[in-house]
Amino acid sequence: MRCIKCGQRACFEIRRHRAAFCQEHLIEHLRNQVEKTIKKFKMFSPKDKILAAVSGGKDSLALWDILLDLGYCTEGLYIHLGISSYSDKSHEMAEKFALSRGVPLYTVSLKEIFGEGMEYIARKTSKSFCSACGLIKRYIMNITAKLGGFDAIATGHNLDDETAALLGNVLRWQIGYLARQSPNMPERGGLARKVKPLCRLTEREMAAYCIVKGIDYILDECPMSRGATSLKYKETLNLLESSSPGTKDQFYLSFLERGQRYFKPVEEEVELKDCVKCDQPTTVEMCSFCRQMERAGFDSLALKKSLKELLSTKGNSFII
Amino acid sequence: MRCIKCGQRACFEIRRHRAAFCQEHLIEHLRNQVEKTIKKFKMFSPKDKILAAVSGGKDSLALWDILLDLGYCTEGLYIHLGISSYSDKSHEMAEKFALSRGVPLYTVSLKEIFGEGMEYIARKTSKSFCSACGLIKRYIMNITAKLGGFDAIATGHNLDDETAALLGNVLRWQIGYLARQSPNMPERGGLARKVKPLCRLTEREMAAYCIVKGIDYILDECPMSRGATSLKYKETLNLLESSSPGTKDQFYLSFLERGQRYFKPVEEEVELKDCVKCDQPTTVEMCSFCRQMERAGFDSLALKKSLKELLSTKGNSFII
Repeated sequence: MRCIKCGQRACFEIRRHRAAFCQEHLIEHLRNQVEKTIKKFKMFSPKDKILAAVSGGKDSLALWDILLDLGYCTEGLYIHLGISSYSDKSHEMAEKFALSRGVPLYTVSLKEIFGEGMEYIARKTSKSFCSACGLIKRYIMNITAKLGGFDAIATGHNLDDETAALLGNVLRWQIGYLARQSPNMPERGGLARKVKPLCRLTEREMAAYCIVKGIDYILDECPMSRGATSLKYKETLNLLESSSPGTKDQFYLSFLERGQRYFKPVEEEVELKDCVKCDQPTTVEMCSFCRQMERAGFDSLALKKSLKELLSTKGNSFII
Repeated sequence: MRCIKCGQRACFEIRRHRAAFCQEHLIEHLRNQVEKTIKKFKMFSPKDKILAAVSGGKDSLALWDILLDLGYCTEGLYIHLGISSYSDKSHEMAEKFALSRGVPLYTVSLKEIFGEGMEYIARKTSKSFCSACGLIKRYIMNITAKLGGFDAIATGHNLDDETAALLGNVLRWQIGYLARQSPNMPERGGLARKVKPLCRLTEREMAAYCIVKGIDYILDECPMSRGATSLKYKETLNLLESSSPGTKDQFYLSFLERGQRYFKPVEEEVELKDCVKCDQPTTVEMCSFCRQMERAGFDSLALKKSLKELLSTKGNSFII
């Protein structure tokens, strides 16, 4: 197999594009794909300040690396959930990357702020672990972007994540979710813009990117996600992709280009107001983060206070 | 495992219903499910005359058997495509069933009418085998229903077939197909009503039905369908179903109940006119069946002529 750019020996094949690349041109290809995606979905411009939500995994670190290489002013946010050794290890990876590139990383640690981690908080609420954790992460991302003056939050969701979510929404015909699923969720009523610049690239490509670029990342999946339905959907889509390369890309893109518009007229824009406790946007009196933290016996405002301090520093210099 | 109806030893488990049945109650359950489906989707009434399109496989023979047991006046149509020994074997099964129940079976044989079978015809046209064959089968079913005065054509499409088709339509977001996919396609402009009374039952249940009822059916799949994408979709959905029983049922029903309506406003009702050659409904001057047969070097009208003779007989007595 030869690189389609230079004819040198290829190190990586991308079957759905009927292409293979050497290391140098693989990086170039993936970077170009991200740049194209940012432009196609009008995610942000070089003037914007981006907050990359990093987990220490391949996707988010590759995303941050690519955004920096493309010249976007991007700072990192790591949410330390206090999940056994997994959180420590993944934090180490995020920190190592930030230091190697000399860029700020803001670490929000649940245990440092509340004295307890995600496992304790989830147990105290009636929600499933993943849904309680998702709520907290979304809240922290949003409030960090708002307090830190970021123009957009970029997450490492890749094509596998997006198509797995889409398949799940389609298997149950969840119209509201279908109407909202987007690689670019514009800012509205205090909710920061959220973008997914990797939505056209696969997990496998992101792993290859990190390997070639020498980016150390945590290999383990979150130990709490074992048996998650989304993993089953990914397995299923991989089966289809292997027998018909391009299936995922076509599924996702044709949804965005042709399918989704049919669900749009029914999307009800619920009005957002300020949470009586923390001022963050909510559809009810008190936002679900404050309610969840109250149920777990914590003062939700401790987060905002600690975040303001953190943002006044230069990020990782504060943690080390 | 015990039968949920009588407590006797169960012979068959239906995981998505968390139920198991003895032979007697399995038959009763499946028959009731078909009756419920016919009523739910307002397919037909006991006054109607039904044409069951039978292939000699488990689904269509079980369908015919159930419709007869439920008291619906149902006659059979077998389309002999002349596909190697597969067609002869499957015809034998259909005939055997019709004789055992003493009901008419009309056999339309491509080789008898045109001197050549489906393989020759498909080769002469530029279409894929399955698409050329599908066109011919749809045409023959419709013209038989019209000339024979049938109120509806019932096909043996089961839940596996319907969800595989739905998944295929969703993976490509084929809006027109999504708008039209239905277990009950009403009559319009010379096109007979088409119904799928087995759409809530699985392949596995239909096989069990035939085994318990002692109905002989052809085990082989059509040799021309090997490697068909629909088989890959079925495999995929079986994977999801096995880890989460009820996935297929939910996918299909929530589509019909919640999802499909969003595609409906865009469905363009193309006006149908009579084919200049055969008088059957078409959107253009000459219908695609007549054009396909012309391309293969045959006079399409031979079919209509032969069909009129066939329908004037009592079906299978004509063939034997």
